[in-house]
Amino acid sequence: MSDQFKYKRLSKDDAAVLLVDHQSGLITLVQDFSPGEFKNNVLALADIAQFFKLPTILTTSFEDGPNGPLVPELKEAFPDAPFIPRPGQINAWDNEDFRNAIKATGRKQLIIAGVVTEVCVAFPALSAIEEGYEVFVVTDASGTFNEVTRHAAWNRMAEAGAQLMSWFGVACELHRDWRNDIEGLGSLLSNHIPNYRNLISSYLAKTSK
Amino acid sequence: MSDQFKYKRLSKDDAAVLLVDHQSGLITLVQDFSPGEFKNNVLALADIAQFFKLPTILTTSFEDGPNGPLVPELKEAFPDAPFIPRPGQINAWDNEDFRNAIKATGRKQLIIAGVVTEVCVAFPALSAIEEGYEVFVVTDASGTFNEVTRHAAWNRMAEAGAQLMSWFGVACELHRDWRNDIEGLGSLLSNHIPNYRNLISSYLAKTSK
Amino acid sequence: MSDQFKYKRLSKDDAAVLLVDHQSGLITLVQDFSPGEFKNNVLALADIAQFFKLPTILTTSFEDGPNGPLVPELKEAFPDAPFIPRPGQINAWDNEDFRNAIKATGRKQLIIAGVVTEVCVAFPALSAIEEGYEVFVVTDASGTFNEVTRHAAWNRMAEAGAQLMSWFGVACELHRDWRNDIEGLGSLLSNHIPNYRNLISSYLAKTSK
Amino acid sequence: MSDQFKYKRLSKDDAAVLLVDHQSGLITLVQDFSPGEFKNNVLALADIAQFFKLPTILTTSFEDGPNGPLVPELKEAFPDAPFIPRPGQINAWDNEDFRNAIKATGRKQLIIAGVVTEVCVAFPALSAIEEGYEVFVVTDASGTFNEVTRHAAWNRMAEAGAQLMSWFGVACELHRDWRNDIEGLGSLLSNHIPNYRNLISSYLAKTSK
Amino acid sequence: MSDQFKYKRLSKDDAAVLLVDHQSGLITLVQDFSPGEFKNNVLALADIAQFFKLPTILTTSFEDGPNGPLVPELKEAFPDAPFIPRPGQINAWDNEDFRNAIKATGRKQLIIAGVVTEVCVAFPALSAIEEGYEVFVVTDASGTFNEVTRHAAWNRMAEAGAQLMSWFGVACELHRDWRNDIEGLGSLLSNHIPNYRNLISSYLAKTSK
Amino acid sequence: MSDQFKYKRLSKDDAAVLLVDHQSGLITLVQDFSPGEFKNNVLALADIAQFFKLPTILTTSFEDGPNGPLVPELKEAFPDAPFIPRPGQINAWDNEDFRNAIKATGRKQLIIAGVVTEVCVAFPALSAIEEGYEVFVVTDASGTFNEVTRHAAWNRMAEAGAQLMSWFGVACELHRDWRNDIEGLGSLLSNHIPNYRNLISSYLAKTSK
Amino acid sequence: MSDQFKYKRLSKDDAAVLLVDHQSGLITLVQDFSPGEFKNNVLALADIAQFFKLPTILTTSFEDGPNGPLVPELKEAFPDAPFIPRPGQINAWDNEDFRNAIKATGRKQLIIAGVVTEVCVAFPALSAIEEGYEVFVVTDASGTFNEVTRHAAWNRMAEAGAQLMSWFGVACELHRDWRNDIEGLGSLLSNHIPNYRNLISSYLAKTSK
Amino acid sequence: MSDQFKYKRLSKDDAAVLLVDHQSGLITLVQDFSPGEFKNNVLALADIAQFFKLPTILTTSFEDGPNGPLVPELKEAFPDAPFIPRPGQINAWDNEDFRNAIKATGRKQLIIAGVVTEVCVAFPALSAIEEGYEVFVVTDASGTFNEVTRHAAWNRMAEAGAQLMSWFGVACELHRDWRNDIEGLGSLLSNHIPNYRNLISSYLAKTSK
Repeated sequence: MSDQFKYKRLSKDDAAVLLVDHQSGLITLVQDFSPGEFKNNVLALADIAQFFKLPTILTTSFEDGPNGPLVPELKEAFPDAPFIPRPGQINAWDNEDFRNAIKATGRKQLIIAGVVTEVCVAFPALSAIEEGYEVFVVTDASGTFNEVTRHAAWNRMAEAGAQLMSWFGVACELHRDWRNDIEGLGSLLSNHIPNYRNLISSYLAKTSK
Repeated sequence: MSDQFKYKRLSKDDAAVLLVDHQSGLITLVQDFSPGEFKNNVLALADIAQFFKLPTILTTSFEDGPNGPLVPELKEAFPDAPFIPRPGQINAWDNEDFRNAIKATGRKQLIIAGVVTEVCVAFPALSAIEEGYEVFVVTDASGTFNEVTRHAAWNRMAEAGAQLMSWFGVACELHRDWRNDIEGLGSLLSNHIPNYRNLISSYLAKTSK
Repeated sequence: MSDQFKYKRLSKDDAAVLLVDHQSGLITLVQDFSPGEFKNNVLALADIAQFFKLPTILTTSFEDGPNGPLVPELKEAFPDAPFIPRPGQINAWDNEDFRNAIKATGRKQLIIAGVVTEVCVAFPALSAIEEGYEVFVVTDASGTFNEVTRHAAWNRMAEAGAQLMSWFGVACELHRDWRNDIEGLGSLLSNHIPNYRNLISSYLAKTSK
Repeated sequence: MSDQFKYKRLSKDDAAVLLVDHQSGLITLVQDFSPGEFKNNVLALADIAQFFKLPTILTTSFEDGPNGPLVPELKEAFPDAPFIPRPGQINAWDNEDFRNAIKATGRKQLIIAGVVTEVCVAFPALSAIEEGYEVFVVTDASGTFNEVTRHAAWNRMAEAGAQLMSWFGVACELHRDWRNDIEGLGSLLSNHIPNYRNLISSYLAKTSK
Repeated sequence: MSDQFKYKRLSKDDAAVLLVDHQSGLITLVQDFSPGEFKNNVLALADIAQFFKLPTILTTSFEDGPNGPLVPELKEAFPDAPFIPRPGQINAWDNEDFRNAIKATGRKQLIIAGVVTEVCVAFPALSAIEEGYEVFVVTDASGTFNEVTRHAAWNRMAEAGAQLMSWFGVACELHRDWRNDIEGLGSLLSNHIPNYRNLISSYLAKTSK
Repeated sequence: MSDQFKYKRLSKDDAAVLLVDHQSGLITLVQDFSPGEFKNNVLALADIAQFFKLPTILTTSFEDGPNGPLVPELKEAFPDAPFIPRPGQINAWDNEDFRNAIKATGRKQLIIAGVVTEVCVAFPALSAIEEGYEVFVVTDASGTFNEVTRHAAWNRMAEAGAQLMSWFGVACELHRDWRNDIEGLGSLLSNHIPNYRNLISSYLAKTSK
Repeated sequence: MSDQFKYKRLSKDDAAVLLVDHQSGLITLVQDFSPGEFKNNVLALADIAQFFKLPTILTTSFEDGPNGPLVPELKEAFPDAPFIPRPGQINAWDNEDFRNAIKATGRKQLIIAGVVTEVCVAFPALSAIEEGYEVFVVTDASGTFNEVTRHAAWNRMAEAGAQLMSWFGVACELHRDWRNDIEGLGSLLSNHIPNYRNLISSYLAKTSK
Repeated sequence: MSDQFKYKRLSKDDAAVLLVDHQSGLITLVQDFSPGEFKNNVLALADIAQFFKLPTILTTSFEDGPNGPLVPELKEAFPDAPFIPRPGQINAWDNEDFRNAIKATGRKQLIIAGVVTEVCVAFPALSAIEEGYEVFVVTDASGTFNEVTRHAAWNRMAEAGAQLMSWFGVACELHRDWRNDIEGLGSLLSNHIPNYRNLISSYLAKTSK
């Protein structure tokens, strides 16, 4: 904290999304979210990337081994996105193709999510901050072994200057104003927040009378 | 417990499904499941009813008021099912149309889920047991205010002879043997258990090589 | 459980309410509910007793000592109810005035709540069952030191035949049919379930347009 | 932390209260507090604003849609307060009327609460800090989807310099000295902290003898 | 549950206390209570045995090995009680000296606590029930590895007819009436329930004025 | 519960162990234990079966598909045990080879563990009870999706007469007396209870001086 | 964090202890610790103050009202300590006598604990830091309403530069070296950490052979 | 956080491991991890130290007393490592031999784990930071009494500049690239993450066909 605090605010014109190692094997290691919650959060982030037309970069680690392939939903969501299967680097930032793909977007704000939090998210997040990027960690689209490893990872990233976000916060900060597309954002939220859909159902039932 | 225990086993030829008050307003009262988990569980049960072609009966309480309409997914899933909007009875069993709809199925095993557990599920469950039905409560497709009310409701129903199930247990007990339809059940599970889908993704990735 | 299960169902014509030792000092011992939740639950049960005009009996233990006086809200709610300050009996059932007050109601269904659960509720509950009363324990209007003592007390009472309820279940089972008094029950629920009030607020806002 | 730490202390002469989007629909999305606890916390904050005569500003987002109207208790509590229904801005700070209402108070300390924490609270909090305001977040009168989103939001705001408070801390820091109004503060606390009321009941019972 | 339920009520004239394997080594295995809570519960039960002059029997398993000696507080509390260091039997009931010590008391109600719950408590509890004793398990003076093993053990014992109690419930059921010894019971509770002591402190402070 | 309670006690001469579907894929679905705890519990049960020379039967479901192979530790532990890969039956009891393998042991006490609890454990447990076997469920060597499904499954099995055990309780009930093999049991416990090993380490350190 | 980090380490020659509002009424408001744990922690801190002969200052707020008197154990532990019953100031630092008592100790390190954390601890902690004192908050001897208020209070104090400690950490940091008084510290720990006492019991049992 | 953030990244050429007081007695005090989880985490860290050939230093406090000996697994893992049994210093850094052993490694990055977190880890961590070392705390190989003491200790260390890690993060950050030794790291992870082993088992089963 300092008196000259500057609100680094997500902008759809300056943000890119990095999805790191959401692979079918690795995801089964996640235990700090229920599997259903985690899947919903990751797909919500994917929908955000598409909705705001954010440049998105996918990367995986050893898809051919036990880590398993990128989950099919992400593959389908981003057919044309740069996809960097890393030959071995654990920190995606150590992979030149990955860094180049980011540079190629021209964006300075990086929205990062991945599995597992303390490695696949934290390592590139720290590297990116060091190189001057603004980093936004999507905490609920990133999973790990338990709450101890999660909180340790959050602390390390936050102390380095990363901003801890949720996918809902990311969506709202990018959208800025409902009037930019009421139906679009409403639909996105409705698909991923069951009680928001319930509110809409109740609302429509009444107004349709 | 007694020495002459008889395993009352769900049979797809003798079971019917009762979905009680899964309305958009009432569901927002549920706090003993995360909204995402609860939605998934209810829709899994609906898929089970369809997959096994179980007679299914829908009922609601005051759809036109704050309780809200039946959630649209259930409406769409069972377009031809008996649908009994109750004019006021809290215990659905007190509604003659509801009881008649059950009788019309000719089934003696009732799979019940609803909102909220201690009322919309427990009341008809107790009534049905009294009339000689075998009752199977789908605990994870039934929601309530908190864990205290849940456990009290479970105890009351179990003491009366209801069998506490999960939707996964219901599906497996009805299916009996994977060979009856491997792809069908696999698809149902894959749609509602993210980590089961992950297992399949990993498996397919390898076998496709 | 047995095949000849009989649904013992609360009836407003056969039920009485026993409020045992909800005293200002004893309530501060309760740790298995947040203080706010517990207060709301107890007052909801009081409102139920009034709404359904159930005979209600109050009793306390050593109001003049550290246990403190009956909480003022209950005093005000039942100015004319039998009030039995026990001179020393821990199990209220051991107090002849208390038993006589119950007998005088002519009711055979007893709805019991109190502080603390394993003593002030469980002891009279077990005694009442032994004497042939049907006992309904309002689990969420009864508090104790922690979840261990709560679950042990629940088990003891349930094994003896007590039915574990929540105040919401009690209200709904007594009311039977919304048409008996829609506004009355709606108002009771609205006062004690904030999200139910929210549903109504949303509903009214729309219909008033 | 630094050696020249300056205690930014709430002052009733320099603080204003911002209540952001406490709407009947949005509140049903809150899952990190029980509904009863959350309602009590919000109303306690409203009572604080009134008790200390703090300028209070209300704002909502799409009251006519599924978000629902401002909860009636807040409407009634602040009949003359500036009320800014935002036409679309998600960050209330992006609404000029809202900023002007704040400026018009002449206050530099902003006490903020709202639904949901990571958006309706965090966004204006960060904007306000950037503009030089001292920001105090009332954590327990602000709700969100779960503890993950809450802690991420807290971290983001705290790192920016917001002070995390509870409504009780706010009340006490504003009051400074019980002698300013013993009965007034005592009454406020008694209304919102059941065990404090219990202490008073026990106390009065004894002194009245 | 049956209509002919008989309340088996603890009587100070018919109860004996069995303390099984509260040894310094074994207690460090307990993880379902905090160490401080557990120690307090065990010592409270010891105080109850002394206060009501209940015959008490101590037994240990391999004091000379890693299980460690009986905790010194229990040794001191019952200098003259039968103490049966078992040469090897895991179920204390398999030890003839232990059974004889119980028989010698002439009591038919057995209050049992020990470490660990599913073995040192459950085994003799089941054996005693089989032989016609009434068994009362002091759940909070019995510890085990985690909540899973605890709940499994509780279920096994309760299904066999054991009554699940807490030390507080035991004390109150034995005492029956405060007038039997107000100061004695008050002192016992005050020593083991900090908030009860607080109530007394507040009470005395006021009455002493 | 009844007065004629008979303690059905595990006997190493009458018990057999059934390990149902501990497959590498299915185990990744388990979320009601941490992966490390669960692995330890399953291997402890395997060690028990070996230590007491209990007939042990292994079965799996679709090892060649996503469910994955039996975990290698179990394969190695029981090289000569009957191993029944089921062609499709979900309830292992529906497989004639499985039933025959059990019959061939001549044992009437069945110790069952598996994945997932409400299906792979509960279904054969209920079938076995119906056929007159005594069933002992090893709750902590059986895993499932969450605590809701676990507790529902426990209730269903316990109501049918299954006894809920932990692996530690199973070991101790089978062993009866430490003198049967002090080193053997000590070693088994030491390998699976880290704090028991710690007790031994501390003990040896002192006695070796 | 900065490269020139200076370890502010507690010294028994430079530390004073402030015990703020540990009153019998206020303590019953504490819900973020079990009452037994909290009492033990507070008394452990008192023993530390005595053991290290730290100047200790006691203060209370309205002992004559519902807040209740200082708990008797603290009164007895510090018969000669400065005791400042505040006439009304909520922040003890606003009381001149309190500040003077601190100044009179000549100490610059302040160890603070109290009830409730976000007010009675946080307010004087922030004031003290502003005046240049080094502040050490004893988190486990300070209690509040719930974990939300606790974590908000911790954050506010930590951001201001307070060091968050436990009583055990305080004791060890003050003691520096066991050789300064092995028996003294061992006895203090043994009295407040039951499992440490168990370790000693086991140790002595063996060495005494 | 600052704009000139420098990612202090673990390097196998610059890191040393300090294992502080993992003694058989002290470990039984740990209650913020299950004993099985904790043992696994500590041994994983030991394996990391060996795998990366990191200089490792062991130290203990009073092995001959109740604290117990260093756990045998660590003794065996590091037969030639400097081992400093401290004669009395609580903060290992106060022991000259310990500091000299660290200096002798020539390393500037210190990976620290120990029991208990707020003392045996935090004290040397703070001392080391003050002397200019980079400190990495292995949070999940460090244990303490409960979550309150853990979080207070984490906060104190993080504010001082320590980086909070998990053993998994440490392993991955040191390894940098899987290609450095795929089998080696895979084997290490497989031994300590059961679900990772499961992934490998499933993978091998398929590829071996």
